[in-house]
Amino acid sequence: LRSSMSSSSMQGKLVAPPMVYAKGEEMTRYVMSLILDKWIEPHLDTTSWQYFDLSCKARDDTDDEVLRECVRAGANVKSIFKEPTITPTEEQVKSLGLTKRLPSPNGAMRRGWNGITISRGTIHIPGVKLGYDKPVIFERHAVGGEYSAGYKTNVGRGTLRTVFYPEVHEPGNPSLPPYKVVYETPLTDGDNAVVTYHNPLDNVSDLAEIFFNRCLEAKVTPYVVTKKTVFKWQESFWQIHKRVFDAKYRGRFLAAGLLGPTNGELAHLISDAATMKIAQWKQGNFGMSAHNYDGDMLTDEISQVHRSPGFVSSELVGKSSRDGSLIKEFEASHGTVTDMDQLRLDGRRTSFNPLGLSEALFSAIIWADQLAGVQPLAEDADVDGPAAAADTPSLFAARAKSALRRVIARGQATSDLAGAGKGLSTEEFIDAVADELKCSAEEGNAAYWASVMEASSSAAELEEDETSEALRDSLVGELERAASMAEATGDRGLSGMDSEAVVNTFLEWDADGDGRIGIADFARAVKSDKK
Amino acid sequence: LRSSMSSSSMQGKLVAPPMVYAKGEEMTRYVMSLILDKWIEPHLDTTSWQYFDLSCKARDDTDDEVLRECVRAGANVKSIFKEPTITPTEEQVKSLGLTKRLPSPNGAMRRGWNGITISRGTIHIPGVKLGYDKPVIFERHAVGGEYSAGYKTNVGRGTLRTVFYPEVHEPGNPSLPPYKVVYETPLTDGDNAVVTYHNPLDNVSDLAEIFFNRCLEAKVTPYVVTKKTVFKWQESFWQIHKRVFDAKYRGRFLAAGLLGPTNGELAHLISDAATMKIAQWKQGNFGMSAHNYDGDMLTDEISQVHRSPGFVSSELVGKSSRDGSLIKEFEASHGTVTDMDQLRLDGRRTSFNPLGLSEALFSAIIWADQLAGVQPLAEDADVDGPAAAADTPSLFAARAKSALRRVIARGQATSDLAGAGKGLSTEEFIDAVADELKCSAEEGNAAYWASVMEASSSAAELEEDETSEALRDSLVGELERAASMAEATGDRGLSGMDSEAVVNTFLEWDADGDGRIGIADFARAVKSDKK
Repeated sequence: LRSSMSSSSMQGKLVAPPMVYAKGEEMTRYVMSLILDKWIEPHLDTTSWQYFDLSCKARDDTDDEVLRECVRAGANVKSIFKEPTITPTEEQVKSLGLTKRLPSPNGAMRRGWNGITISRGTIHIPGVKLGYDKPVIFERHAVGGEYSAGYKTNVGRGTLRTVFYPEVHEPGNPSLPPYKVVYETPLTDGDNAVVTYHNPLDNVSDLAEIFFNRCLEAKVTPYVVTKKTVFKWQESFWQIHKRVFDAKYRGRFLAAGLLGPTNGELAHLISDAATMKIAQWKQGNFGMSAHNYDGDMLTDEISQVHRSPGFVSSELVGKSSRDGSLIKEFEASHGTVTDMDQLRLDGRRTSFNPLGLSEALFSAIIWADQLAGVQPLAEDADVDGPAAAADTPSLFAARAKSALRRVIARGQATSDLAGAGKGLSTEEFIDAVADELKCSAEEGNAAYWASVMEASSSAAELEEDETSEALRDSLVGELERAASMAEATGDRGLSGMDSEAVVNTFLEWDADGDGRIGIADFARAVKSDKK
Repeated sequence: LRSSMSSSSMQGKLVAPPMVYAKGEEMTRYVMSLILDKWIEPHLDTTSWQYFDLSCKARDDTDDEVLRECVRAGANVKSIFKEPTITPTEEQVKSLGLTKRLPSPNGAMRRGWNGITISRGTIHIPGVKLGYDKPVIFERHAVGGEYSAGYKTNVGRGTLRTVFYPEVHEPGNPSLPPYKVVYETPLTDGDNAVVTYHNPLDNVSDLAEIFFNRCLEAKVTPYVVTKKTVFKWQESFWQIHKRVFDAKYRGRFLAAGLLGPTNGELAHLISDAATMKIAQWKQGNFGMSAHNYDGDMLTDEISQVHRSPGFVSSELVGKSSRDGSLIKEFEASHGTVTDMDQLRLDGRRTSFNPLGLSEALFSAIIWADQLAGVQPLAEDADVDGPAAAADTPSLFAARAKSALRRVIARGQATSDLAGAGKGLSTEEFIDAVADELKCSAEEGNAAYWASVMEASSSAAELEEDETSEALRDSLVGELERAASMAEATGDRGLSGMDSEAVVNTFLEWDADGDGRIGIADFARAVKSDKK
């Protein structure tokens, strides 16, 4: 279909397929404007993209019509990239001069796109050690549970009763249809909060299919997570997964050798045990599917174990009510980074890692291409191969993902990876990747990869130069606190040393500047010591 | 009061105050029978203890009367030790030859003792590195939430409605009193699970008092954890904590210098952020108070970060309906250890660490003593002091806790600490502690403590032994991968070295065995190198 159309446009640029682009706020909006200018526009013709401004101001000015338009456009186009947005607090309503409190845009998107799941996964950079060695993926049911609960607080003594009417009851109609009592309980405390919610289950089989396919693609072992041993109503969520698995997926998982850890079966994990496994299974290679709230809790734990939400991808997957095809909205797992934006506005240097943001953008481009009929890249495609230029937007996006990782891996990283006070500034990093993309477009990625990795001495210089006073101070403080704590227990093993001198030696050893000496740092130092 | 009675009994043993002892099942029952024989009976006269057998068989045989008696006795005596028990599955009902499925005993205990909170905390062993460096404590609201929910599954399309009658409605009485609608929502899916629950709030102020007192005693910063930003009905839980804090505790926390990290205020943490902090704040020194289900999830995460549930204490705190005094039931955070019990029954060697179990037993003895009028030990009491023998059961229990830690710290540990396949057997460990208690009773703890700690070379050996092959292998692998990546870019700075030897030296420097050398590790190594 469209693959025949993906020829270059007038300016020699690839024509990007249609996509909805939702703009947000603060630091991440600023960074994305640089990325669009420097990484995207030189290579892609994005005239088919539809932009919507979801800043609080724009939403307030249009009485939120802009959000409704964005959701409608997304339902048509089906590939959406969204920058982080702000859901204003009472204080922000005042400080931003809004006329009223705006709800989170996520609810409207979930409803408008019939959200099934929020798919998350760890992002990995070859050569850079993060939390998990291999992929961890997650499905979080996008609807139901306590997020859509009804409730009352300050409820006194009495009786609480929940009933179900098997027809939709018209409010105000006094003649009630027959009903079934779901639950009736006395309330004996003087003060109670009461809560009712439901888990709609019709789309759980779709969720299960998405989950199993992602597990197969990432080559990980699937686990369904619930608290069904105690919360008996969660049994259905598990049963639906099991049914889909047994009917369609067991054979493929067995063939792929992914059910070894679970004795050839789909495994269930109790949610509290899952909090333990997430901390324990640092090797990665597992997937989890869970209810909405459990998914919220567990994906945040995964983010932290893997270093930060900046290294976790997130996409909302919904389903078109018109034709049943999938709608995907891609975003970073983090927010608008308010603190850093304030530094930037004050004219200070910032060092923001746009990995999560750009991963979402590139994934949206790849999905848009697929919707336009371009065959997805094979799993083992050599995206860094010798071809002189990318010939589809998908291949460009895949190459850009690779280029970004390469820049980080050779030491041109932002301070989250280079160490506090070290590394490139936000703008320097974006320029470094822009250069890489330019060279890669001209020379092919493979040649460039080899040439830059040879220049490893410059990476070492970078690290030495940028060792910040902040890291030095914090290490001196850490050492002095440890010494005084040791002294308090009669241990003088850290007493009477020149902290500054020890820290200076330490920093010579700590080549990656993360404030800890790893085995590779150690080996280099020991070797050069022996010379 | 009773302190005057705590003279020795006829056999020269201290008379233990009344306590309820609930027996359980499998490995932990076996281990506790050894502990009672070898650690307790030689030193304490326990004739005032009431024993109840909560094994499935005994409960089934008595139609659960034994559980009801245990709960009644606990309500009178107010200090309870409970071994792990089994809540039988359908399969276990058959395999154990039971006449019916028995509910978990925990529900009956929570109701019978008006459970307020499940108090948990990390257990620390001086000289042994676990997950958190300093204490982490937790309060989990013992009632309410989804644990006592009403629900229906397979609910189709229709309307769900929850109402509140401000009087207790008698089932069967057709004349309904006036009601308020809590919530009404259409159900549009063909399949739904519907759920109603309440959070009774009357005892949250008691919970808050228990929490703040424990935080002050452990010298940690308090955080209240909810999802109230989205689950608005959870606001009350926070407000009650805040009210108690501002009225009675702020000054004491400020004086103790514990509010530095929270700017002098009681802090609230969103539950999903709490999953991140628990993984991040390895230094410890924090406390959290949470709703029932959040507490379940988060304490399991804490257990894993701190190594395993074997290193976390757990007590149910309730309140006497007769006189309002506190009832405390102490238990280990783990179960009956079925797998290991099977090995034992097969005549194989096991290596079980009874730290969590015995910590609970000793704490129950100390609480029983306090109920009997014995002054609690001062926080900074020198329990290992030179007195020839303990003169109260509390002091005996405190000394026993200390003796157990000492045995572990000098290297006589079970395989969970010594490494897989290493360490003492279950019985050897219990004998080692029994010997220690005997010597300590004869010679006084202080002398003994000093003598064993001087033999620090054996402790160093332990650390060497204890370093698991897994860490060693993973470091060798990490180093070799780093070397081959460096070589691929022409960097031979890591080439041609003896990886095993480098890793061995590295492990000597890495005193805390976390696979990274921090500044304090480094300083110690540099200092000892210069000697």
